[in-house]
Amino acid sequence: MSSATEDHPEVGQVPIGIDAIGTRQEFDSMGTVEVPADRYWGAQTQRSLLHFSIGDDRMPKEVYHAYGYVKKAAALVNNAAGRLPDWKTAAIVQAAEETIRGDLDSHFPLYVWQTGSGTQSNMNVNEVIANRASQLLGGVLGSQQPVAPNDDVNMGQSSNDSFPTAMHIASVQMIDDRLLPRARDLAMTIEAKAEQWGEVVKIGRTHLEDAVPLTVGQEWSGYAAQLRACIGEIEHTRAGLLALALGGTAVGTGLNAPEGFSADVAARLAQLTGKAFVTAPNKFMALGSLDPMVRAHAALRGLAVALLKIANDMRWLASGPRTGFAELLLPQNEPGSSIMPGKVNPTQCEAIVMIAIQVLGNDAAVAFAGSQGNFELNAMRPVIISNFLHSARILADGMAKFLTFSVSGTELNRNRIEQYVNESLMLVTALSPVIGYQNAAHIAESALANNQTLRQAALASGHVDEKTFDSVVNPLSMVGHGVAGA
Amino acid sequence: MSSATEDHPEVGQVPIGIDAIGTRQEFDSMGTVEVPADRYWGAQTQRSLLHFSIGDDRMPKEVYHAYGYVKKAAALVNNAAGRLPDWKTAAIVQAAEETIRGDLDSHFPLYVWQTGSGTQSNMNVNEVIANRASQLLGGVLGSQQPVAPNDDVNMGQSSNDSFPTAMHIASVQMIDDRLLPRARDLAMTIEAKAEQWGEVVKIGRTHLEDAVPLTVGQEWSGYAAQLRACIGEIEHTRAGLLALALGGTAVGTGLNAPEGFSADVAARLAQLTGKAFVTAPNKFMALGSLDPMVRAHAALRGLAVALLKIANDMRWLASGPRTGFAELLLPQNEPGSSIMPGKVNPTQCEAIVMIAIQVLGNDAAVAFAGSQGNFELNAMRPVIISNFLHSARILADGMAKFLTFSVSGTELNRNRIEQYVNESLMLVTALSPVIGYQNAAHIAESALANNQTLRQAALASGHVDEKTFDSVVNPLSMVGHGVAGA
Amino acid sequence: MSSATEDHPEVGQVPIGIDAIGTRQEFDSMGTVEVPADRYWGAQTQRSLLHFSIGDDRMPKEVYHAYGYVKKAAALVNNAAGRLPDWKTAAIVQAAEETIRGDLDSHFPLYVWQTGSGTQSNMNVNEVIANRASQLLGGVLGSQQPVAPNDDVNMGQSSNDSFPTAMHIASVQMIDDRLLPRARDLAMTIEAKAEQWGEVVKIGRTHLEDAVPLTVGQEWSGYAAQLRACIGEIEHTRAGLLALALGGTAVGTGLNAPEGFSADVAARLAQLTGKAFVTAPNKFMALGSLDPMVRAHAALRGLAVALLKIANDMRWLASGPRTGFAELLLPQNEPGSSIMPGKVNPTQCEAIVMIAIQVLGNDAAVAFAGSQGNFELNAMRPVIISNFLHSARILADGMAKFLTFSVSGTELNRNRIEQYVNESLMLVTALSPVIGYQNAAHIAESALANNQTLRQAALASGHVDEKTFDSVVNPLSMVGHGVAGA
Amino acid sequence: MSSATEDHPEVGQVPIGIDAIGTRQEFDSMGTVEVPADRYWGAQTQRSLLHFSIGDDRMPKEVYHAYGYVKKAAALVNNAAGRLPDWKTAAIVQAAEETIRGDLDSHFPLYVWQTGSGTQSNMNVNEVIANRASQLLGGVLGSQQPVAPNDDVNMGQSSNDSFPTAMHIASVQMIDDRLLPRARDLAMTIEAKAEQWGEVVKIGRTHLEDAVPLTVGQEWSGYAAQLRACIGEIEHTRAGLLALALGGTAVGTGLNAPEGFSADVAARLAQLTGKAFVTAPNKFMALGSLDPMVRAHAALRGLAVALLKIANDMRWLASGPRTGFAELLLPQNEPGSSIMPGKVNPTQCEAIVMIAIQVLGNDAAVAFAGSQGNFELNAMRPVIISNFLHSARILADGMAKFLTFSVSGTELNRNRIEQYVNESLMLVTALSPVIGYQNAAHIAESALANNQTLRQAALASGHVDEKTFDSVVNPLSMVGHGVAGA
Repeated sequence: MSSATEDHPEVGQVPIGIDAIGTRQEFDSMGTVEVPADRYWGAQTQRSLLHFSIGDDRMPKEVYHAYGYVKKAAALVNNAAGRLPDWKTAAIVQAAEETIRGDLDSHFPLYVWQTGSGTQSNMNVNEVIANRASQLLGGVLGSQQPVAPNDDVNMGQSSNDSFPTAMHIASVQMIDDRLLPRARDLAMTIEAKAEQWGEVVKIGRTHLEDAVPLTVGQEWSGYAAQLRACIGEIEHTRAGLLALALGGTAVGTGLNAPEGFSADVAARLAQLTGKAFVTAPNKFMALGSLDPMVRAHAALRGLAVALLKIANDMRWLASGPRTGFAELLLPQNEPGSSIMPGKVNPTQCEAIVMIAIQVLGNDAAVAFAGSQGNFELNAMRPVIISNFLHSARILADGMAKFLTFSVSGTELNRNRIEQYVNESLMLVTALSPVIGYQNAAHIAESALANNQTLRQAALASGHVDEKTFDSVVNPLSMVGHGVAGA
Repeated sequence: MSSATEDHPEVGQVPIGIDAIGTRQEFDSMGTVEVPADRYWGAQTQRSLLHFSIGDDRMPKEVYHAYGYVKKAAALVNNAAGRLPDWKTAAIVQAAEETIRGDLDSHFPLYVWQTGSGTQSNMNVNEVIANRASQLLGGVLGSQQPVAPNDDVNMGQSSNDSFPTAMHIASVQMIDDRLLPRARDLAMTIEAKAEQWGEVVKIGRTHLEDAVPLTVGQEWSGYAAQLRACIGEIEHTRAGLLALALGGTAVGTGLNAPEGFSADVAARLAQLTGKAFVTAPNKFMALGSLDPMVRAHAALRGLAVALLKIANDMRWLASGPRTGFAELLLPQNEPGSSIMPGKVNPTQCEAIVMIAIQVLGNDAAVAFAGSQGNFELNAMRPVIISNFLHSARILADGMAKFLTFSVSGTELNRNRIEQYVNESLMLVTALSPVIGYQNAAHIAESALANNQTLRQAALASGHVDEKTFDSVVNPLSMVGHGVAGA
Repeated sequence: MSSATEDHPEVGQVPIGIDAIGTRQEFDSMGTVEVPADRYWGAQTQRSLLHFSIGDDRMPKEVYHAYGYVKKAAALVNNAAGRLPDWKTAAIVQAAEETIRGDLDSHFPLYVWQTGSGTQSNMNVNEVIANRASQLLGGVLGSQQPVAPNDDVNMGQSSNDSFPTAMHIASVQMIDDRLLPRARDLAMTIEAKAEQWGEVVKIGRTHLEDAVPLTVGQEWSGYAAQLRACIGEIEHTRAGLLALALGGTAVGTGLNAPEGFSADVAARLAQLTGKAFVTAPNKFMALGSLDPMVRAHAALRGLAVALLKIANDMRWLASGPRTGFAELLLPQNEPGSSIMPGKVNPTQCEAIVMIAIQVLGNDAAVAFAGSQGNFELNAMRPVIISNFLHSARILADGMAKFLTFSVSGTELNRNRIEQYVNESLMLVTALSPVIGYQNAAHIAESALANNQTLRQAALASGHVDEKTFDSVVNPLSMVGHGVAGA
Repeated sequence: MSSATEDHPEVGQVPIGIDAIGTRQEFDSMGTVEVPADRYWGAQTQRSLLHFSIGDDRMPKEVYHAYGYVKKAAALVNNAAGRLPDWKTAAIVQAAEETIRGDLDSHFPLYVWQTGSGTQSNMNVNEVIANRASQLLGGVLGSQQPVAPNDDVNMGQSSNDSFPTAMHIASVQMIDDRLLPRARDLAMTIEAKAEQWGEVVKIGRTHLEDAVPLTVGQEWSGYAAQLRACIGEIEHTRAGLLALALGGTAVGTGLNAPEGFSADVAARLAQLTGKAFVTAPNKFMALGSLDPMVRAHAALRGLAVALLKIANDMRWLASGPRTGFAELLLPQNEPGSSIMPGKVNPTQCEAIVMIAIQVLGNDAAVAFAGSQGNFELNAMRPVIISNFLHSARILADGMAKFLTFSVSGTELNRNRIEQYVNESLMLVTALSPVIGYQNAAHIAESALANNQTLRQAALASGHVDEKTFDSVVNPLSMVGHGVAGA
């Protein structure tokens, strides 16, 4: 980009903000609209505020930050193609960078429940950047001079291609910055616990019923393996988000964008974000469907499914202290009851369970919405991106709290664990290869009926002698080696 | 309630607010905690903030407003039973009323993702009211004197019974104040449109394909009938929310609440809110399940299902302007495209569709959570109440916008509607009783194949003469009378 | 209906069945088709078999039985209106009655995955009844003489109104014949158990953690109350199914049906089935939506949610025998493990849980499908009726097995129950009104930390003397009276 | 495997079947049971039939065929390890092969709704193979001699590891044999159509509204791209199913299985099936979760989402014939209406839509079930495998019918397509870079208001001359090149 010359305005050092009160006139193709004088947005944003103030759900700020990258990259590519002069480019780039940094967040007020294409949020970005850039260049706010929202900031773009591009960028960043780090932290700590408790023999339970023993470490290795597979799946579906729609413009053909625009903006976005973005090979799919988002949310759902298992196991194993399983001791973070003194509850586990259930609900909404595209556009974008970012965010934050305030401080109630191993009857399984399944079954039934230990009942059965029993029915030798089974 | 006397403090005229900076010490059974000095909350709220700052989802304010009623009613009943002195009661009642009015909203900061019983939000209310009441009585904040959160504000209650009570109150109010009025407004306007367009004959479509005619009014009467049935179902499931858990205390037995507490607080709550609340006949169900909430959300889901049909019909019938059905003219509220000049889109319909899809997703979460109770408690309450209020709110607001900015201003494209009636071949159905189904079918097929009108093909077939055709195939006489069919 | 006279054929005594091999020619408006010679169906059924043999999902037989009523009622009303001669009516009525009884089941081979209106199944019925009636009248199969599928059997009807009518009839019958009886049986037995165990004090559990006591009877009364409410909701939504679409014909206007047809066929159907069917007040809703089916399935979903809670509680409370809660003893119906001898599992509970989960999945499909109507028709009928009947059936059968093989034979492990009550620390709650919440909390914490009984810790605390403790901390006096709380 | 010698029985040539009537006694550890004399199953199968005859849902036969492989591989590995003599091995292998081929299908009668571990189906297989093998060896049915179900056929296995192994094998085979071939066929045909119609310019539609043009081929390329991505995702999640649980036995430790069993049976299964099966690296995850199944079903769900878009587009674009979009001409397979003569409907599209909706419902059930594992076992296996095979099957069959009877024969209504291009106003977008967005918008609005062509309105505006208009607004030059956008 060449420097400013005398025949055009130069980007000035104008701090962010508009020192004005009351309202200002802005216009679009339908006419003029009064907007708050201290905001950068224009007519279409204001129309959307009027028509769509529904509930409290705002378009997530992450979408606007991602859009900042889109507008910056587009401006740079347009400039390189000779379509946008240097000075305009410089102003747009600065405003886009401010958008990326979140410095203009208060100028993006729109709601999730708006047009299904996200056009209103795109126009919000176009209007804010246009006004901010005009301000930087000494222009009059609302005049669309010297920088116009549609012709300049939106140059070579449509909402139809730029909004899904912003969705992908925002999603990848949420995955990279919040979700995966927290998931990896949790997996790592669980792996460390599995290692630490690798030799602690406990009774297994299947169908909730007493079963043969394993080690606590083996049990926790299963949790870790689940999480690692979920992380792998999130990484896999994240790869699908790297393909960007930008360059398809209105319907996928790329009308009004110059040749090469698709590849160039994708490359520029990759450079700006440090993510391996590429242009989507088929723009008709990229505009008409949101399949990669549906797949990426399915990976979040997969993580929720695994967390439900893990958090449920933990709270059941910690149940008690006197009348439950009581094998685990969870950190006691707060009084648990407003009426029962001294009660402590597995609240972190409950929060994770509720988060996971919410993610499953969100997943149903995302899949439904993903199926409702028609012709050249899936116009269910806001509901999909808001659910995706919501799910990823509460999973990430939830795992962080779960890790810090529950998993990390979890300890074993070793007495109880040992007692259970000694009392269980299912150790009889080890006798099965020696005396046959049916004889072994009758020993277990007899022990239960007569309130005997397994050893008592086995010896009484006459099928096995003391020496055999003691050598075969040895919990330590029943847990195998490692985690890969026999 | 008797007036204050010299042997106890009197409720003073202390404005809301704490003029302090930095932090203040608060305590609970686990020890002391620093809280922001300008907030009324205590130790347990602060612990929850530390442990559960997850995402941006806060416990809805409506829950706290409802809790204000709970605390007020409980105080009054405790006072009447001689368990709470008049002066404490007066202070608690004033703080509760401030809570109801929303004046203390900024003192309820907790997140949705917390303990599954809602205990932390109950304690937040207990702490805020206790401190505010103590302040009114000249006490020292954080001293739990003269009003203590557990012993006074929570007297005779548990989170386990008070939280679902607050859920029901908040839900009924949301239904009454927002959801039903907006649904009725929408139904009424659609009924008026149905009346207005009662004589406009249009072509019917089944399987998306041309079918026999009906009137626009008949078509819209179907929408109205759907909405009226949904309203009836919401009213029906609302009735299930009138049964309150309060008085069950910790596990449903009512331990630590005085005899008659259940009925008395329900009566008091009915009086305070003007809603026909009663005490739940079985407190073990009322604590162990959230079935009435699941049923009430199913009614919201039913409304979403109906709105999907209506909004989809409207946007399809408005498709065009040149290459779609184009029977309806929706208000043009904003430019529709950032790249295609002059484009106007059915954005209100899209918002309704997305809202409805969100409600279906929320419904899946609510049902799942509703199934996950264990023993004496369903500990999935926060996720259920937040989804319920979310769904009701976006449905209500969405319908309001849809009505104002789309349905009210919708007009008919009468030329197009008339043209379709004239061109359609399915009027042949009226000939079926005269000449038989098979002959009628061949006429329709022939007209299509030869690009003829139905009349041309019918006469060419030899099965019918001009006079018969013209008397039988008359759109106006094919639409029947009214909306109840033959 | 007058008797046969010489100028028309008479209904003969022809047994069901066609004694022929190979194929027979049948025709429809598109031409001729070869069908199996020993089947009554015609051309359109055969076309559907060719085009839609997808998976193993057949249209449920209950739909055809219900359709038998529809065809019989329509014939009788048409006859009464002078549109269908007596002799044809008699033959159609006989064939319809054979359909109702299931005697023609093997002639209804079509799949669920067919046209969304159910037209192919309606035509299957029309064809089978036409051929069977023609056979009874001495006609030639495939000739559509003397009884024609469209003109005679389908007289005054469309698939668009008759199929949802059959859906409602089939659903009401499934509810009445299978679902409600089994649900009531289960509720009654659970109520009897609640009565029987009304005095057995057990420890309560909230958040899976030890809580204050209640009786086993109180706990089970909660299950019964849930079921009773679910039954009430099923009855309520069943009422919505009583409104029938028949008489709307193709698009709701009633074209080609005689005046009064709607009310007359509904009355006739009520008489024939003994159910209080009425004609739907708005036929455009009745054809364009399936909202009453969506609502009715939500009631099934509600039952599934309650069953999940109950079955989960039972299997957790039965967990053990040595290392779980072990309060309940479930019947031992079968060996539980192929490898662990003597293991018995809560398999009936697991089956109920899986059934309930399936019903929740089905519910999502039903709601989605219910939302996808367009214009004058919801063309998602087969998927809705097949899911509805599937859900109702597996719930009904599942509850029957669950009752017979698990609930009825469940017994209490009274030793374990008593031991838990004695060991629990949460009885401290009863001290709270006496010594305050904070002091009580510290007693419980101390007992746990020092492995003491509550009594030991309480006395050691100095806050309470022996006499007070023993009079206050008395489990029997902590369970209140009845089920309505304090 | 060495040949038979004199000291043990030899496998005889005994045809499949038992020539007996009435019942036969079979036993298990709980006692004796009467079973039908002409069936191979034993006591536990019979117990399950008694306790679990719920609805019509049988465990899919594919599970038993897969189990045949499991039993064969286990026998061979046990034999090689010297644990199972050659002659027993030979008999078990033959019976297993008969199971694989489906020759014993009628001996596997159990229901889906049974124990959550699938133990009853495993025991069904063990019993049938044991009896069949004993029969082959001259033994007495019901004697468990010489081949016993638990000790021989189930040697080294548990239901807990063998059932998920059979699930994975059955799923992979369903994917390979049915699902992927049909998906690829469909994608290929759509690609061919896209190629064939690559030059046909049509009007694009976004938000259902007229937009800028593209080619029919471009539109269909988007469908194909969606399908190809779905196929890729199915292949990806299929890979997760290649890891087998076998060798974990009861709780994952591999108790009672010899060292190396895990790897050996996986290798043997890979060899027998020709699929790249390996042993799961963590058996605690493999038994305690069903995450790979949840992920694999998410891929089916993804396909359903894409098919919904494609089938919906097709039926909307085919709507008409006179009053809809009418761009596509779908094959006319059958009469569409029982009342409206000559009506033809997009029934294949409707079937696909309903199938897709069912798959979304099934997906919700699978995810819920997948989350409900506890401790060492996810006991929700039958509901997961039955939904997985159901979804895969109806998708595969549905796509086959959709392809054969709808997609393949779809043709273009070229007149209508051309007419729309000529009438649309959105070609004005091409003028935007020349005269600015706002001027272009006003031209479009004016054309619509005055019922003009775009050309008329553009020239009337004065912003553009004829020559410019004709060179810029040229549909052919607006569709770009290829499918990757600009």
